[in-house]
Amino acid sequence: MPKKIHLISFIHAAASSMAYGQWKDTEDKLAREYTDPNFWVKTAQTLERGGFDAIFFADAHGVKDVYRGSYEASVKSGMQFPACDPILVAAAIARETKTIGLIVTWSAGYFPPYHTARLFSTLDHLTNGRAGWNVVTSYLSAGLKNGMGDNIPHDERYDRADEYMDVVYKLWEKSWDDDAVVLDKQTSTYADPTRVHKINHKGKYYSVEGPHQSEPSRQRTPFIVQAGGSPRGNAFAGKHAEAVFMVCMSIADAAKSTKKLREATAAAGRDPSSVKALLQVSCIVAETEAEAQAKAAHFLELADVDGSLSLLGGHTDIDFSKFRSDQALSGLESGGITTIGKFFSGVGGSDKWTFGDMCEYLKLSYLCPTIVGTPEQVADALEKWIDEADVDGFVLAPVQTPASYEDFVDLVVPELRKRGRLNDVGEISTLRERFTGSEKIATDHHAHSVSIDGAIAGGRRARVTGRKAS
Amino acid sequence: MPKKIHLISFIHAAASSMAYGQWKDTEDKLAREYTDPNFWVKTAQTLERGGFDAIFFADAHGVKDVYRGSYEASVKSGMQFPACDPILVAAAIARETKTIGLIVTWSAGYFPPYHTARLFSTLDHLTNGRAGWNVVTSYLSAGLKNGMGDNIPHDERYDRADEYMDVVYKLWEKSWDDDAVVLDKQTSTYADPTRVHKINHKGKYYSVEGPHQSEPSRQRTPFIVQAGGSPRGNAFAGKHAEAVFMVCMSIADAAKSTKKLREATAAAGRDPSSVKALLQVSCIVAETEAEAQAKAAHFLELADVDGSLSLLGGHTDIDFSKFRSDQALSGLESGGITTIGKFFSGVGGSDKWTFGDMCEYLKLSYLCPTIVGTPEQVADALEKWIDEADVDGFVLAPVQTPASYEDFVDLVVPELRKRGRLNDVGEISTLRERFTGSEKIATDHHAHSVSIDGAIAGGRRARVTGRKAS
Repeated sequence: MPKKIHLISFIHAAASSMAYGQWKDTEDKLAREYTDPNFWVKTAQTLERGGFDAIFFADAHGVKDVYRGSYEASVKSGMQFPACDPILVAAAIARETKTIGLIVTWSAGYFPPYHTARLFSTLDHLTNGRAGWNVVTSYLSAGLKNGMGDNIPHDERYDRADEYMDVVYKLWEKSWDDDAVVLDKQTSTYADPTRVHKINHKGKYYSVEGPHQSEPSRQRTPFIVQAGGSPRGNAFAGKHAEAVFMVCMSIADAAKSTKKLREATAAAGRDPSSVKALLQVSCIVAETEAEAQAKAAHFLELADVDGSLSLLGGHTDIDFSKFRSDQALSGLESGGITTIGKFFSGVGGSDKWTFGDMCEYLKLSYLCPTIVGTPEQVADALEKWIDEADVDGFVLAPVQTPASYEDFVDLVVPELRKRGRLNDVGEISTLRERFTGSEKIATDHHAHSVSIDGAIAGGRRARVTGRKAS
Repeated sequence: MPKKIHLISFIHAAASSMAYGQWKDTEDKLAREYTDPNFWVKTAQTLERGGFDAIFFADAHGVKDVYRGSYEASVKSGMQFPACDPILVAAAIARETKTIGLIVTWSAGYFPPYHTARLFSTLDHLTNGRAGWNVVTSYLSAGLKNGMGDNIPHDERYDRADEYMDVVYKLWEKSWDDDAVVLDKQTSTYADPTRVHKINHKGKYYSVEGPHQSEPSRQRTPFIVQAGGSPRGNAFAGKHAEAVFMVCMSIADAAKSTKKLREATAAAGRDPSSVKALLQVSCIVAETEAEAQAKAAHFLELADVDGSLSLLGGHTDIDFSKFRSDQALSGLESGGITTIGKFFSGVGGSDKWTFGDMCEYLKLSYLCPTIVGTPEQVADALEKWIDEADVDGFVLAPVQTPASYEDFVDLVVPELRKRGRLNDVGEISTLRERFTGSEKIATDHHAHSVSIDGAIAGGRRARVTGRKAS
């Protein structure tokens, strides 16, 4: 039986996501409708119809202002700016969808963990078990300028995030017993106080007494997603992530990243197959190859490369306005993604690329593989990644929204289904079940190993350890 | 023409709001359904049908644990615990309501102002202009224990909140010009960078560069609600609040509070009638007086006074388990609400109350006037508050949810309408218009007087002051 493929849609709750200038075409509705809940509900329902596992809401705080030393290009191109807060957009979608997961990017650092725990418990309640959390620890300089976060060294950031995760796991997994809400009319007991525990967390960075303010939601801990690429980030993902969002241009790079991820997962004492590697891709699909190529050409015409370079500037802290079009790519250094030339070498022969070649590439799909072709060609390419790079699925970045999703759902999904590549999720409704078959986080996950020194109501104390609060 | 009455519904997105033990009756659905968006949409639609101006979501972080020195009574009675995050519940209601405002309690202190500004802009976008913010500055000891906020003195808290408000006003009112989003295909300009300004705020407590991450929503600044009772809190309300949530037991007290509020508003250079005084009340209504009294008796039977005393303990930091039932109320000191005896003296003859009498009172409606009777009797009582205490409307605390709302909408609203007491809001859809007739915050409000030293894209700088960014 062929390996199944997970499908996630990638999006920003903003004027654009990863392709810029597309708003000039009325088929791209994002720029005009990203503030409208009708747009989001309709888009989510399209993806749900296509059997997508989840919507992945990317997010950042601030505006990118490295390119040309200002935010001019970001604002002019509407590059992920202006933006809505995606957690509210996810909540607005909750009631009128039934099966699609809602993964929201949220920083483990900007907000008190006690509050973050309640926020995701609420989203999991409102969606009846479909909440996912893309845990980010990085601080954009633009965020810092706006009073978001503090400037601590990269690796310490992950140490602090590790403690942050311990706090939220304690709140989600250990603070409330499963049967705490009893609704016992005889004794007028809504919840049994002896089954609701303080966590009494006192660590280096956080001090949180508890108990958790929310009763357990269906998943308890939301489905945990991460995107760390550095060695420390990879270890963090191995310990915490149930799915990892990957950006790779070649099958060889993706295979290497996936291998490193599974090793980090095993090193954290977990089943290495329990973390799902999800690769960002962009697909331009039509009934015939000629139509698909024409569509890509049309997108290229609309494209606004200043938006892409403004984003890349924000990601790498390099002002790309200083580079010449004929400059060789291989020599360009980048802080964020090793060297840019190396990164792009996965795209057929692109180790010979110039800066100008790269700009052309960025126009359509920023830093991810772009597949242009018929439904069969796209399915062939996707299968190749799955089978050769050991990835588990794709995060589909749209060029135009919702048109790119609609094309994929109407053309590629039936082809993948015909090939037996998609899960038949049937009645499955929690996000985690779609990935792991289980509603609750896996028993070998770190979330279960946190201990609480919980005072039970009335002053009695009980050390609660192990798999389940007792 | 009689003075019009504003109607707001009060609620916690929690197992209970202000009346405890009611979950034992299946008519009280809150305890079982507060995590379900279907419940919230249906309840909001009921209130919308009744012409309510807004839903007011109260909130706090933590669990009350003063009574008997533990959270036992809070958990056992389900006293506002467990709880959902109300801002997500508000977002979940957005799309399927059209006119009702959604006022959410949110702390000016726990979260970076840059983030708070985007959050409320998003809610205002998703609701198309129906977002309200109940600004709270107070820190519960329970919140502090959970790593929420820091323990700074009361008055300094307001000083810091004043600066917090300046930051968000700058982001909401000054960062984006009205016509910044141009969608000009010819020049490939989504937004004009020269019309999007940094705020460059550098104050004692906050440093925020901007620009605001959201484009202007219909109201720009959400409708600002406050509930400060102390002299410093009253000054804060006079400066910032467009509506104030009041808790008073007597017409004399309410008249005094309203007078002080209008004076503080005038002192802040604003039209004193532009701040709306909203009094919390509880109404138990039925077709006949006998039925209404029977209903009240039934509610009393269900009531769980431990929940009420646990809440009062949290509000006052007094452990009421130490008091005897026959103790005179007049001697009881309270940190939060002057003395308790004085507070209750407004309820007919209650200066002679014992602690036991107060407990009986708290069972139904906690700290607010309770009106029991026919639609005519309830309307009579409400009119008396409006006409004699100069209040502008009511915040209706339900005993059972949504039953108390349904009763009010079906029985009291028609009576008030008949008496010409309700506004005919017709096509009005923004929250502020319902209160002030204007979509944007009043020109004499402090939000307009903040100045930004805004760098315009490309390094040019412009001092933007006065009424409108230029």
